[in-house]
Amino acid sequence: MTNTHQFPEDHVHYTWDKDPQPVLTIDSGDQVDFSTREVADDQFNKDSVTEDIATLDWAKVYPLAGPVEVRGAEPGDTLEVEILSLKPGSWGWMAILPGLGLLPDEFPDAYLRTFDLSDGHFIHFNDNIKVPITPFFGTMGVGPANAEGQVVMPPGTFGGNMDTRHLTTGTKLYLPVQVAGAMFSCGDGHAAQGDGEVCVTALECSMQASLKFRLIKGKKIPAPQFQTAGALTPQVDHKGFYGTTGVGPDLMASARDAIRSMVDHISENYGLEPKDAYLLCSLCVDLKISEIVDAGQYIVSALLPLAVFQENE
Amino acid sequence: MTNTHQFPEDHVHYTWDKDPQPVLTIDSGDQVDFSTREVADDQFNKDSVTEDIATLDWAKVYPLAGPVEVRGAEPGDTLEVEILSLKPGSWGWMAILPGLGLLPDEFPDAYLRTFDLSDGHFIHFNDNIKVPITPFFGTMGVGPANAEGQVVMPPGTFGGNMDTRHLTTGTKLYLPVQVAGAMFSCGDGHAAQGDGEVCVTALECSMQASLKFRLIKGKKIPAPQFQTAGALTPQVDHKGFYGTTGVGPDLMASARDAIRSMVDHISENYGLEPKDAYLLCSLCVDLKISEIVDAGQYIVSALLPLAVFQENE
Repeated sequence: MTNTHQFPEDHVHYTWDKDPQPVLTIDSGDQVDFSTREVADDQFNKDSVTEDIATLDWAKVYPLAGPVEVRGAEPGDTLEVEILSLKPGSWGWMAILPGLGLLPDEFPDAYLRTFDLSDGHFIHFNDNIKVPITPFFGTMGVGPANAEGQVVMPPGTFGGNMDTRHLTTGTKLYLPVQVAGAMFSCGDGHAAQGDGEVCVTALECSMQASLKFRLIKGKKIPAPQFQTAGALTPQVDHKGFYGTTGVGPDLMASARDAIRSMVDHISENYGLEPKDAYLLCSLCVDLKISEIVDAGQYIVSALLPLAVFQENE
Repeated sequence: MTNTHQFPEDHVHYTWDKDPQPVLTIDSGDQVDFSTREVADDQFNKDSVTEDIATLDWAKVYPLAGPVEVRGAEPGDTLEVEILSLKPGSWGWMAILPGLGLLPDEFPDAYLRTFDLSDGHFIHFNDNIKVPITPFFGTMGVGPANAEGQVVMPPGTFGGNMDTRHLTTGTKLYLPVQVAGAMFSCGDGHAAQGDGEVCVTALECSMQASLKFRLIKGKKIPAPQFQTAGALTPQVDHKGFYGTTGVGPDLMASARDAIRSMVDHISENYGLEPKDAYLLCSLCVDLKISEIVDAGQYIVSALLPLAVFQENE
């Protein structure tokens, strides 16, 4: 029998801090059900438009549900977080935020789109493009050691804003405990995202989630680890992928080159404006390091799943 | 009807050079069958041992079959290379080569293993570990512009030693033509490799291959692109993946951290010596850029397919 707790919806925090008051205290083996706000803390709604970005209050970005204290957890232990279920809200948003993202020079202007998620299975990007809903929390972490008003955006070895698409239903996440009680928090729900999150937003949404916690005493890991339950992209594998590459001595520059080429490829072949192609990259294109050992010239590939295009049916 | 050519086995070149004499001249639409040597040009055989690395003559590494001239190809065109079939030879090798690879400090000593490939479907890494044979050419490229005794190891926008695992049977590779006639060459057969090729070798083998060439006039691409025929890792998807991560401001350092953690994970959980765990990473672990946009802290994940472990059956 699993002891299940409901995390109170009205408790959020916007920074990582040391010695936080736990909102909930649980035992290893317990389940917690969360209902989290979208990452902008309800500053956007389904009718929001690009102009609303200008008034975004960044102090209210990343409302995290937590902390949850796990009895007996100490630095040097590992916290297993089993993702039992994730259900996005009925709508979500994506944006280009000036100065952020992988290609800030190419995309200097703000841009916001909202999406209806009530289909439950697919994000209808346009009449021709459907991306499967594959939800995960962008942010899950234990309390970082020595934090003091630490902003949420950068992740760390404590986890946090990992934006790692494979942390979806069925995955077990392992986090290295850094403070007494572990002090787990989560939020920043994503309805879908490719490896990289290149435009700086995923499809941002509220989320209902059930997580199960297990404390592994004395198991030390240097950074987050995880185990998926099955294939990584099973819903879009069957039609193959289009890959673009960046080649050069710097992985960051190669990643930029690969995404630049992918934006061009999508724009030219599927009639999307570049800014929408960039959003689509963030939503479903995966960045891979194809090789990282060849005489100082490395290859990053960007892979687009062709199954998202309905005209190929 | 396809016009099929047999590339003569005794013609190889070890560097990229300008104005090379074509060994074969073909038309767009033609097929060429190749039989290529393993990357060390038969300096190793199936009985080779670690000590044989010491006498390796690097001038004979990367024997490439080519060049193949494509009539009418000019700079600014794109050459499509459709990979019709790939069949590895009966054995292959992997090695740690001092000073090379992603973790040269942790693995300073030479190490060589040979593998029997006569099973045709799997590489038997040990009694418990079977990795599917998923062959590709580590090196396929058009002649680079202005080359002069250019060594093969670093790839470039002309392709070359791309070591990109997804260039397997059914994939169409697109290369930007840089010299008149395109001057395509290939070699460096790999029976299997993960994204990254982290220890600096894949499972190196001879290869029989059929490639079909199509010239796309006036289509300009900045770097290689490709289209796969289906799922990327279909033979190992069903049992899920174990992921390790590296988090930090430098993608190279994060990749190293992720692979260090994966070597530890494999060693501790599957009883492999670290050097064999490193080889296994190079053979089947995929490096992904999970996020590349979060306030200067980026995450590289290394994903190990659990299907390679027979004890999980």
